[in-house]
Amino acid sequence: MCINMIYEVRISYKPGVQDPEGESTLEGLRALGFEKVEEVRSAKLYVIKSDYDLQQIEEMCKRLLANPISQDYEIREVKQHSSR
Amino acid sequence: MCINMIYEVRISYKPGVQDPEGESTLEGLRALGFEKVEEVRSAKLYVIKSDYDLQQIEEMCKRLLANPISQDYEIREVKQHSSR
Repeated sequence: MCINMIYEVRISYKPGVQDPEGESTLEGLRALGFEKVEEVRSAKLYVIKSDYDLQQIEEMCKRLLANPISQDYEIREVKQHSSR
Repeated sequence: MCINMIYEVRISYKPGVQDPEGESTLEGLRALGFEKVEEVRSAKLYVIKSDYDLQQIEEMCKRLLANPISQDYEIREVKQHSSR
């Protein structure tokens, strides 16, 4: 039997850092007539299925998933499921 | 006074649809020594601040944010804040 954890890792831009995708999405929405949209910020989500613990997922963020200069990461355990 | 809603819109690939970013992230993690990672799926998150209601946010997903062929969307109201 193996036990797998599922983690959701959210990578977002630090406050004040430019977010080109958020900005172009805002422009796109306004161009479609949604003129009352005030702000759009984009973020990236990775859903990771593995046997690693929270500390090791944090290590993955630091080494690969997030840019420490411009991005923040946030890790959430989603659920645990068992399978044979 | 204006009331703004904050919505989190999550755009993910439908099950069975290829996810190149998830796959290359999986390869990257394994190359770093995290060999027990079983699967990585990527998704996109838009944090939208606006006065629109849920139905209009859904309209934005259909018209701009999600590709109906390959992607699913999920909308969550995060909070409501008031400002003058």
